Amino acid sequence: MSDLILVLNAGSSSIKFEVFEAAGLQLCWGGQIEGIGAAPCFATHDSEGWMLADRRWLKNGAPVDHSAALGGIIAWLDGVTNGRRIIAVGHRVVHGGPDFAAPVLVTPAVLHRLEALASLAPLHQPHNLAGLRAAAERFPGVPQVACFDTAFHRDHPWEADSFALPQRFYDRGIRRYGFHGLSYEYIARRLAAEDPVLGRGRLVVAHLGNGASLCAIRDGRSIDSTMGFTALDGVPMGTRCGQIDPGAVLHLIEAEGMSPAEVGRLLYEESGLKGLSGLSQDVRALEASDRPEAARALSYFAWRVRREIGALAATLGGIDALVFTAGIGENSAATRARICEGLGVLGIALDPARNAAGAPEVSVPGAAVQVLVRRTNEERMIAEHVREALSAGARAAAGDASGPAYPELRG
Amino acid sequence: MSDLILVLNAGSSSIKFEVFEAAGLQLCWGGQIEGIGAAPCFATHDSEGWMLADRRWLKNGAPVDHSAALGGIIAWLDGVTNGRRIIAVGHRVVHGGPDFAAPVLVTPAVLHRLEALASLAPLHQPHNLAGLRAAAERFPGVPQVACFDTAFHRDHPWEADSFALPQRFYDRGIRRYGFHGLSYEYIARRLAAEDPVLGRGRLVVAHLGNGASLCAIRDGRSIDSTMGFTALDGVPMGTRCGQIDPGAVLHLIEAEGMSPAEVGRLLYEESGLKGLSGLSQDVRALEASDRPEAARALSYFAWRVRREIGALAATLGGIDALVFTAGIGENSAATRARICEGLGVLGIALDPARNAAGAPEVSVPGAAVQVLVRRTNEERMIAEHVREALSAGARAAAGDASGPAYPELRG
Repeated sequence: MSDLILVLNAGSSSIKFEVFEAAGLQLCWGGQIEGIGAAPCFATHDSEGWMLADRRWLKNGAPVDHSAALGGIIAWLDGVTNGRRIIAVGHRVVHGGPDFAAPVLVTPAVLHRLEALASLAPLHQPHNLAGLRAAAERFPGVPQVACFDTAFHRDHPWEADSFALPQRFYDRGIRRYGFHGLSYEYIARRLAAEDPVLGRGRLVVAHLGNGASLCAIRDGRSIDSTMGFTALDGVPMGTRCGQIDPGAVLHLIEAEGMSPAEVGRLLYEESGLKGLSGLSQDVRALEASDRPEAARALSYFAWRVRREIGALAATLGGIDALVFTAGIGENSAATRARICEGLGVLGIALDPARNAAGAPEVSVPGAAVQVLVRRTNEERMIAEHVREALSAGARAAAGDASGPAYPELRG
Repeated sequence: MSDLILVLNAGSSSIKFEVFEAAGLQLCWGGQIEGIGAAPCFATHDSEGWMLADRRWLKNGAPVDHSAALGGIIAWLDGVTNGRRIIAVGHRVVHGGPDFAAPVLVTPAVLHRLEALASLAPLHQPHNLAGLRAAAERFPGVPQVACFDTAFHRDHPWEADSFALPQRFYDRGIRRYGFHGLSYEYIARRLAAEDPVLGRGRLVVAHLGNGASLCAIRDGRSIDSTMGFTALDGVPMGTRCGQIDPGAVLHLIEAEGMSPAEVGRLLYEESGLKGLSGLSQDVRALEASDRPEAARALSYFAWRVRREIGALAATLGGIDALVFTAGIGENSAATRARICEGLGVLGIALDPARNAAGAPEVSVPGAAVQVLVRRTNEERMIAEHVREALSAGARAAAGDASGPAYPELRG
């Protein structure tokens, strides 16, 4: 019976998990616990997506923290894995800071460094690390691999990595990190496998989900991204504002008397599609609405995404493929159509029928730019990183230094 | 002897002025007083640029305020105008808020409304209005016309005018106003006069001076601009940061303990080319330097401007002409060349020899996009507005309502 790799994505009040066969990375099971800290709800599914469990979950009235929630996941897994071993755990960690340019095997020293990055992503990093600590405690001796949303972008040219601030701010880590790196890396790897020529080309990938950003990729490497220092920047999102004048932030504090924490809540939780429409953060709900505010919010979203596609195309000197991914990018034909309107100047031409059908390629046959729709899979990307880390570790143990130094630490 | 129009541009510590013949708008004299509040320095020139006066100026040891400085300008003008009358004064006013979409004849009620906009542009508006009040006092009965940096952009589609914030913030004036409107309007009018077909086309104008922004113009009207709510947004400038993650602003306050005022000083005065290079805010100085920091700052500036040209081209659905203007845009061939690198995807191709010579057209003959270099002239644009306001006033006095309602007030 083959060994297993567990992938965890721990958020503020949820833990998502997927379990892969270590050998071939086939998905076995997945699920999530939501409502950690309140009334947890547990749902799991198998590799075909069949629901295996879906229940409210109360632990004798005691508060359920990340460790207890992970205990619940493990207890459930014990019942289905039939004795197969979990040989490594991969973790999604939002922020690798300036130094972590690749996944890393977590040691106490690494954990300490990751904790020091919490102020760069206060809404995510502490929860990611709570999941990491819980897994280290529940799986003693099992390798824990941290995979970062920022790592894929760490090779950005300095011009894309820096704000126009004095150098000392860059030196202490105030940079345009970019996020959604695991999604972009997954898409870049899959495209390179599908079509090696395209894999060496110039791609703009639009990761449009409840969080959204775009990434310029050349020869498989990230060159630029619309997200900056935090997950607020770039295009508007479900509840986040996207790009906004820094002077407007200061104005809200200085002239309108809001506290920085209130501004943070406004920009993270009350803005974006939700704030613009006053109706919903969900593109499906807005597309189903006949209210003019809904149409305006959707038009705004498309306008800003279109603008960023133009910006990234200028950075790349032209594009060979535009790839839509994540919830909205994969599923909303209307959003794809709105975004691509007027982008003929870049060689983009959507085929309406293919787009409506959500075909893998939605551009007009023979168009200069291939417009593609691809399902992203960040958990699978993490599992690949874990497997690579394990085999690098095995090579290192065997004294073979011919492979890439992996997991590596830069800086 | 023909009448004269005086144009004033009052800043925090300076008043610039130009005097035009009212009939044909020929420039007669210009100059400036700098160091208001400290040790004023007075310099004037005639229409050929010959220096007429250049002196330290002390008023019996009394502090020189805007009114006293304007008194000095008037006293000097009395000596050269030879009795010709100043029949109107035009003022550059940075912020017209959401309502002023055109120049306006200043009445006490208008002045009151402009004062209420001071919180939108605290570094400029109070000084602009100090100049306005001083001129109203020194020229009793003479029409004062306020011309706004924001007015040319007030027709932006909502998508370009709004941040992705809840509607109530838009309603109370937190919008993407855009600035440098007098410069863009001047360029758009001149191009339409030169080439009516191009004047109806799709233009990107890059106003690159110590302040810098870009504007997308279609059919003579502004569609989008890189500047937002304040003069901080968009591309980096001499000392201003340009676009920066709103989360970075919050981080500087919440995690680094800076006060909002300190962050404001950092972003307005210590960032941009000066902050990036640690050397100078002046492109000429950076281009003359052999320090790597200088080259990096210049490369950064070009990268960000190039990115915005791509963004505006996407918004316009392609561009017919790219126009460089203002100090850097008009004079730095190297900056123009760096910016245009890789923009072939948009049909942009610079002719190196023409660019080096600063020719009016610097693109390769026959290129899809004309790349032009044009001198901007905001004072002349103000003088044109004043003349139009006077003739509209004369028409109104004669009971002729056939012309456009001008000066108008929207909202």
